[in-house]
Amino acid sequence: MSAATLSPGLAADLAALTAADAVLDPGHHPEYGHDATAYRGLRGEPDAIVLPGSAAEVAAVLAYCYEHGLAVVPRGGGTGLAGGAVPVEGGVVVASDRLRAVRSFAPERWTIEVEAGVPTADVQRLARENGLLFAPDPGAAEQSHIGGNVATNAGGPHAFKYGVTGRAVTGVEAAMAPGELARFGGALAKDVAGYDIAHLLVGSEGTLGIVTSVSLRLLPAPAASLPLVAFFAEAAAGCEAVAAVVGSGLQVAALEYLDGATLAAVAGAYPGALPDDAGFLLAIEVDGDEEEARRLAAEVVAALGDEPLAVHAPQGRSEREALWRWRDGVSGAVAGQLGGKVSEDVAVPIDRLLEIVEGTLAIGERHGLRACSWGHAGDGNVHSSFLVDPRDEAQLERAEEAADELFGLAVALGGTISGEHGTGWLKRGQLGRQWDPAALAAQRAVKRALDPKGLLNPGKKGDPTGPSATPNPNEQER
Amino acid sequence: MSAATLSPGLAADLAALTAADAVLDPGHHPEYGHDATAYRGLRGEPDAIVLPGSAAEVAAVLAYCYEHGLAVVPRGGGTGLAGGAVPVEGGVVVASDRLRAVRSFAPERWTIEVEAGVPTADVQRLARENGLLFAPDPGAAEQSHIGGNVATNAGGPHAFKYGVTGRAVTGVEAAMAPGELARFGGALAKDVAGYDIAHLLVGSEGTLGIVTSVSLRLLPAPAASLPLVAFFAEAAAGCEAVAAVVGSGLQVAALEYLDGATLAAVAGAYPGALPDDAGFLLAIEVDGDEEEARRLAAEVVAALGDEPLAVHAPQGRSEREALWRWRDGVSGAVAGQLGGKVSEDVAVPIDRLLEIVEGTLAIGERHGLRACSWGHAGDGNVHSSFLVDPRDEAQLERAEEAADELFGLAVALGGTISGEHGTGWLKRGQLGRQWDPAALAAQRAVKRALDPKGLLNPGKKGDPTGPSATPNPNEQER
Repeated sequence: MSAATLSPGLAADLAALTAADAVLDPGHHPEYGHDATAYRGLRGEPDAIVLPGSAAEVAAVLAYCYEHGLAVVPRGGGTGLAGGAVPVEGGVVVASDRLRAVRSFAPERWTIEVEAGVPTADVQRLARENGLLFAPDPGAAEQSHIGGNVATNAGGPHAFKYGVTGRAVTGVEAAMAPGELARFGGALAKDVAGYDIAHLLVGSEGTLGIVTSVSLRLLPAPAASLPLVAFFAEAAAGCEAVAAVVGSGLQVAALEYLDGATLAAVAGAYPGALPDDAGFLLAIEVDGDEEEARRLAAEVVAALGDEPLAVHAPQGRSEREALWRWRDGVSGAVAGQLGGKVSEDVAVPIDRLLEIVEGTLAIGERHGLRACSWGHAGDGNVHSSFLVDPRDEAQLERAEEAADELFGLAVALGGTISGEHGTGWLKRGQLGRQWDPAALAAQRAVKRALDPKGLLNPGKKGDPTGPSATPNPNEQER
Repeated sequence: MSAATLSPGLAADLAALTAADAVLDPGHHPEYGHDATAYRGLRGEPDAIVLPGSAAEVAAVLAYCYEHGLAVVPRGGGTGLAGGAVPVEGGVVVASDRLRAVRSFAPERWTIEVEAGVPTADVQRLARENGLLFAPDPGAAEQSHIGGNVATNAGGPHAFKYGVTGRAVTGVEAAMAPGELARFGGALAKDVAGYDIAHLLVGSEGTLGIVTSVSLRLLPAPAASLPLVAFFAEAAAGCEAVAAVVGSGLQVAALEYLDGATLAAVAGAYPGALPDDAGFLLAIEVDGDEEEARRLAAEVVAALGDEPLAVHAPQGRSEREALWRWRDGVSGAVAGQLGGKVSEDVAVPIDRLLEIVEGTLAIGERHGLRACSWGHAGDGNVHSSFLVDPRDEAQLERAEEAADELFGLAVALGGTISGEHGTGWLKRGQLGRQWDPAALAAQRAVKRALDPKGLLNPGKKGDPTGPSATPNPNEQER
């Protein structure tokens, strides 16, 4: 990739709107040209990179770009898995790195307002240190920014009980075209005065406005969180167990699975004894006060019945943390098998879970690829992965075809092409497989209404046109 | 009101799209000309009333109206409190009475899809009979339709823990302009493939599309629900107790209050002994399994400290049901004092609760009106009421002025003009007090995008133009 050069005129104009050191030369900062899909070959060359120091500066930059017909590519921590923050066709990258203020925090009322660039892990920590819970726990929480998590409506294991990021959002401040700050909602738990544009912005991936600040409703933290790990001989038994746990009406906090091939990739690192013939794993977390969590754990074990080969209950904080660290390492370990992977985050109704788990393997086989899946079983949200050697272009191409087939299967099973990563750039053109023409027309109408010049993150979030991209062999999802 | 006459041509056209008996003559069905704001003087004369028998028929009717430039006024159970379903300026009322199908119900996966005309109480019952919970509990659940509750994003006492109606919505099918059915989302817990247009429709009060069917995520029902009633000498102590309960980090299910004047209106019917000097009441419900609910109840009592004059814990199902029946009767009993009331549903941050409670009384006094308030303390969502004799036009006018002042106070306290009833017709023009110009512009742009001819429920949901309406002395909120 040849280094882009920053036009001195553009640099000066942007610096006048922000600060001299707020404008970066893309030639010296290639890291703003990609996100976590870089290994999938997705990189761009922005015309400029700007790090506004305030929401007002974001609006001023948007106004400038809108006036001059420059595309704007909003960027958070750069941990996206669909290329949403990649300046594929150039434009001005507007990054939230310097939007770091905690504008208000009232733990006694469970409310916090943070600017878009606050790392998600900081929000989690602030909540935790005050006896509260910010439940969304997507991967890469230390790197990702809350604004990016809101813009993608990020998920994570605990979404099963607590919902995805949008569930916690009560208000959004955003720079809207043609360049003004707008506030939708705020700290109120209930507000139906206007349209719910806050939640229209949630998950819109920077295509309708640039999130500058978010108001979140935290929850009281549960006193105890107890994980359980159940091993099964095969996927069929494991998926039946998922149905049994959900069908038993037990509100568990997280209900995760690893299929056999995934388990094989991380077996060596498992913090405990693994049954020899384990071909499927469920990691279930229950929470509540100590007694309730214990009672729930016992009821989950009862609901699992005799089917599991073994059930482990990690004891004490260190064992529990070790389990979740191990779970966090799954994506990297799977990628490490051949050096890379093409992984997608489709979701299906949970009674179709076995079909997508087995379908992933069958698709891989048809394309001559090793495949596996893991993910958020309780939400039917699977990470189907096709292993690749990133230097093998033919293999990458087959993996891309496999992913395309996977999208088709997910939709055929009543599911979605994206449960939590978003559409970004990589899945543009796929929405039409899932949405009817009238729904697509509504999406396009909303886009045109709020971004009449089409300058906000062009080509992202389901735009059905544009060239196809190459697969990412190495992204990190949870 | 003179009876409108149904044009034979329009009747024949609509009957051809639906069924002969699906088209009603407004002259014979005045009940479709108003909602629960009728006593506030708000009535309209539709050009026709049509009761489509299927979602496809709704779309066909919308297509016809869109082609012929006829306004469409979607209608659910007619229990709205803001005039959202009133055909104030005529048009074709499209009512959901015949959209009664439960399209799918999978209790073992906590999912249900119901057509718009299914009564909300039926959804609650279906859930309950299968060990599940549909938590939204707005007033008039037997009469209101789930489609209307979704279109207004209705609330209720248990929204404090479980959220408002939109929280339970995972998908919406709607007839969209110019007359096509579209489906946004479905039974999936997680889906970020496209914009969240489902939740844009939630609370849009029929101004962006006509909800024909909704997919809901139910929750496991708690085994036990225990109410507690705490009495205080005055509002200040009661509001401090609200802060203490929330600040203690106890996740109670409902946290309701009645101020002294409200309490006086319903004291005689209280199912228990009322302390003589009670000037403020909190009704708190905790839930969970039996042990957890009991533990929570004890912790709530501890958090209340020595401040309450008394704390009652109704025992057994019949006492508990009697308490909630009594709570349900509040609105009617308050209205019964003088024959009517003008009541609004503003919400404020909970640390401003005392100010809106006392401010309601002060506003009433300034306008020579008896006033009181009650509502959802945990959400800061109050029903501020000004008592009126509905035959006294001068008093009604003063009450309308008082309500206007109330909106200003709510916004000044960082709150909203509507916590759960919506903007409808009665609060049109108020959104500009609360939203900045850029936010208002976004709302208008979305409206134009999805309803370019402005035929979907014209003048509703914050449209800043249009004549003012007279107050409603007798509506029923919870």
